[in-house]
Amino acid sequence: MFLTQLHADIREMTMTFATTQGANHAALTPLSFLRRSAEIYPDKEAIIYGRRRHTYREFRVEVERLALAIRAAISPGDRVAFLAPNVPELLLAHFAVPLAGGILVAINSRLARDEVITILDHSDARLLFVDSEYSASVRGLAETCPALDTIIEIIDEEFGHGAGEAGHTPLEVMLARTATTTDPLRWEIDDENSVITINYTSGTTGNPKGVMYTHRGAYLNALGEAHHTRLADDSTFLWTLPMFHCNGWCMPWAVTAAGGAHVCLRAVRSEPIWRAIDDLNVTHLCGSPTVCSTIANAPEAHRIDRPLRITTAGAPPTPSMLEHLEAMGIQVVHVYGLTEAYGPYTVCEYQPAWDSLSPDSRARMVSRQGVAMVQAEPVRVVDEAMNDVPRDGEALGEILLRGNNVMLGYFKDEDATNAAFAGGWFHTGDLGVMHPDGYIELKDRAKDIIISGGENISTVEVEAAISSHPAVLDVAVVGFASERWGERPKAYVLLRPGRAVNESSLLEHARGTIARFKVPDYVVFVDTLPRTATGKVTKAALRALDDVPAPRT
Amino acid sequence: MFLTQLHADIREMTMTFATTQGANHAALTPLSFLRRSAEIYPDKEAIIYGRRRHTYREFRVEVERLALAIRAAISPGDRVAFLAPNVPELLLAHFAVPLAGGILVAINSRLARDEVITILDHSDARLLFVDSEYSASVRGLAETCPALDTIIEIIDEEFGHGAGEAGHTPLEVMLARTATTTDPLRWEIDDENSVITINYTSGTTGNPKGVMYTHRGAYLNALGEAHHTRLADDSTFLWTLPMFHCNGWCMPWAVTAAGGAHVCLRAVRSEPIWRAIDDLNVTHLCGSPTVCSTIANAPEAHRIDRPLRITTAGAPPTPSMLEHLEAMGIQVVHVYGLTEAYGPYTVCEYQPAWDSLSPDSRARMVSRQGVAMVQAEPVRVVDEAMNDVPRDGEALGEILLRGNNVMLGYFKDEDATNAAFAGGWFHTGDLGVMHPDGYIELKDRAKDIIISGGENISTVEVEAAISSHPAVLDVAVVGFASERWGERPKAYVLLRPGRAVNESSLLEHARGTIARFKVPDYVVFVDTLPRTATGKVTKAALRALDDVPAPRT
Repeated sequence: MFLTQLHADIREMTMTFATTQGANHAALTPLSFLRRSAEIYPDKEAIIYGRRRHTYREFRVEVERLALAIRAAISPGDRVAFLAPNVPELLLAHFAVPLAGGILVAINSRLARDEVITILDHSDARLLFVDSEYSASVRGLAETCPALDTIIEIIDEEFGHGAGEAGHTPLEVMLARTATTTDPLRWEIDDENSVITINYTSGTTGNPKGVMYTHRGAYLNALGEAHHTRLADDSTFLWTLPMFHCNGWCMPWAVTAAGGAHVCLRAVRSEPIWRAIDDLNVTHLCGSPTVCSTIANAPEAHRIDRPLRITTAGAPPTPSMLEHLEAMGIQVVHVYGLTEAYGPYTVCEYQPAWDSLSPDSRARMVSRQGVAMVQAEPVRVVDEAMNDVPRDGEALGEILLRGNNVMLGYFKDEDATNAAFAGGWFHTGDLGVMHPDGYIELKDRAKDIIISGGENISTVEVEAAISSHPAVLDVAVVGFASERWGERPKAYVLLRPGRAVNESSLLEHARGTIARFKVPDYVVFVDTLPRTATGKVTKAALRALDDVPAPRT
Repeated sequence: MFLTQLHADIREMTMTFATTQGANHAALTPLSFLRRSAEIYPDKEAIIYGRRRHTYREFRVEVERLALAIRAAISPGDRVAFLAPNVPELLLAHFAVPLAGGILVAINSRLARDEVITILDHSDARLLFVDSEYSASVRGLAETCPALDTIIEIIDEEFGHGAGEAGHTPLEVMLARTATTTDPLRWEIDDENSVITINYTSGTTGNPKGVMYTHRGAYLNALGEAHHTRLADDSTFLWTLPMFHCNGWCMPWAVTAAGGAHVCLRAVRSEPIWRAIDDLNVTHLCGSPTVCSTIANAPEAHRIDRPLRITTAGAPPTPSMLEHLEAMGIQVVHVYGLTEAYGPYTVCEYQPAWDSLSPDSRARMVSRQGVAMVQAEPVRVVDEAMNDVPRDGEALGEILLRGNNVMLGYFKDEDATNAAFAGGWFHTGDLGVMHPDGYIELKDRAKDIIISGGENISTVEVEAAISSHPAVLDVAVVGFASERWGERPKAYVLLRPGRAVNESSLLEHARGTIARFKVPDYVVFVDTLPRTATGKVTKAALRALDDVPAPRT
């Protein structure tokens, strides 16, 4: 074939876009999921929140009502902040804000007032929607934050909240005064790479960074989540995962895409969780190992005989937790990701061959972070020169990601964006190994590694060894300065109610599973572990404690 | 907020693409599905074909071997044709050809030699791969078709085919002589809107048209299919649907995305189908109602007690067929689409409320074509002025589609492309109604409508009425010229083996379910119905038959 002919063919193929008037292309957006489910399942229950129920038709109507009110108050591209627990309004906002042309900023409700101010200022949010539970904490912010026009209060009568803070506009008032319009809302968007939400990182170092998600990324991540967690139109999803964490791992969009039911939940406590599981036939929920633990150790806990799938991340579930949940008939899907990756990026795909392993070995396989989800590009683990580490399950390196499941960038922070994407890959800052089977295993958040006598000690590994003792409910391991070794590990342990173990038996138990040099020098038994607003143990606080026991004589 | 600030924000958001070096974007391509599954399920069975078995690792190795051989023989963008039944090589080709930079043209093996020549010439295919079963039919074509360099013969020893046609290169010879290369194959692509395959329409009118699919469209359709048919890594898919139909409705990519097993099948006969269902634990298959009928009416047919999901399209399954299959424990997913829509575009999503309907009413709901799949844009049914018809289940209109699930265009046929996309929507040429619940129901292929006394008669509806009689195996209804009415329907009926019914009882039965004016004037009992290469009844042939019985006296 002559090259001229070849070029003519290729030109013809690409020109076709013009002649088809764009009828063969639609910008990817998760808005399409609600439009579709409202059309197909108008009378199906979409939102359940206490006695409040919405069908999918009502879901769409409520979203449009809220979108019209927001559109009247902002310009396209403006940020709209929400500070709320998992009430229906925050779920609606995941559709209403982009439908109004805005960008959703869901703020962690566990943050202090100053941290909230930092986010409102950095994002230049025009509107702040606040749930009555937190309204006192944002009192007067409309005067403090230059960009902030209005604070709208979500007054949740279902849960007995009152009349609203003075100076806040009750949401119902805002909705009622929105003029009817002949300008219809657009469910299509022009550019799938435009920003749909900004999620602020927890900011353990420096100021919080605003992670930008795109319509395309959110759409693809949602489809991937629906696939891996097997969501379908008969699914019922319980909102134990805060929607302000990575937009609830994109689950507001994924569950809606599948036409499943959302069960909203103000407080993540064992009693309402188990009531929902039993009364509402919950089939899916997500959460950190703390949520798993809340469920497994609840007084209401019991074996269930229908499918329930818990997707967990944040820290590897311990082998004992996995065994515990499976014994109750609960299937655990272990995923790994971070704010910059729309939530989950990898999933520990279960291999049939693991069926024949001992429960311990099997749990160890499942507790690894796994492989890229179906919509994500392959993960890399690299050394400091960005060369892949050997796939031996031993060599520690940084976990790198790329593709549609990675954020657009940090909002108004080009330096941080450049640094995060050095070399054309997103740098997670997490350390892990690549196993021979291509599964990654997280060994530590970059800053949490303990280097003792030149050997790396993974605190995660030490924590798993200690928490495998039946008396242990929770544990945190950190380093302390040692003249001889540079650094040595120490452990903070929370015991299960009614159980006891002394330090020497516990350390002896740990010696049975990990190398001697990794075993902590001492144990401090505590009543509670200090945590950040996002639920991570604040290890810096533990490291700072000077509690080294006097040497034994 | 000042407008200048707003613009600065938006500029900053879009600029981020540059600073991230593209690490937050990956071109969508179904190639990624095989790369991923080969990585995650290397030892899992991927392809089963008689005694031949390939794991996912081998699947990738075979694809790369084939891709290297193809790459050595073509230039980027060249078309590579396949003429084969559902043997593993055609499955490999769905990955190997695009991996080699080529465009796959899978030709319908039921076409006549002249029709094959037309497609080879129109597509300028450089290579033609032919299975031994069809090799005699393409003898000498390398001399006839100007662009065609080589014919490669797939010699299937498993099924006892011989040494290959003289002048054809045996595939194994081609693979063996491919020089080893240091230039690695690229699993990523540059432009997701580039063409991955060209599928030629059956061409009942005029010359066949080459329907161009893109990497993006194939990727999204595959994810949608996986969702709606609930494919997962424990799925086993039986290849009863020809891969040369719309690339097997994108199932080569969807099943691979899920990590399921492909069971290849040379001939769609009841015995090997039932053997696969029983011995290989098939969970999914696709096919026309003829495939459903083959399965349901087989001597081997029996009730099965594990999940088996049949996705069917091409014509609405009759209520009696649905009842028959469900009684055997088989779940039917009814989809609708066409070559220009990557295969399926709509799915008849099952509504829980239908559970309480009578079996007949329920079957009628399920036999509708339904709603857009999760990755597709909403369907329209419009009148001649392109206004939506009322959603009353009565008003007939043309079915229009748009979005990522619609072809790029017709290859080298700008006029046909323009006509198909008139007004910015793809015109299916199919007639249907929109029900109040938003489900479409196909009433007829545009040309098959019978207009009698100014009233439209849907032949599909009449066929359903007749085939609901227990003695009827198959039926085709067409119009014949009538002085009084313009046109009247007549029916060609194939009876079930061992069953009998006479004309008057059959017509009486039809009068029980459809309006009197729709009941055919007469019935011709036949041994077989004439069909095109794609399995559609050639109604033109039936219309031409002058078999009007003499008037009764």
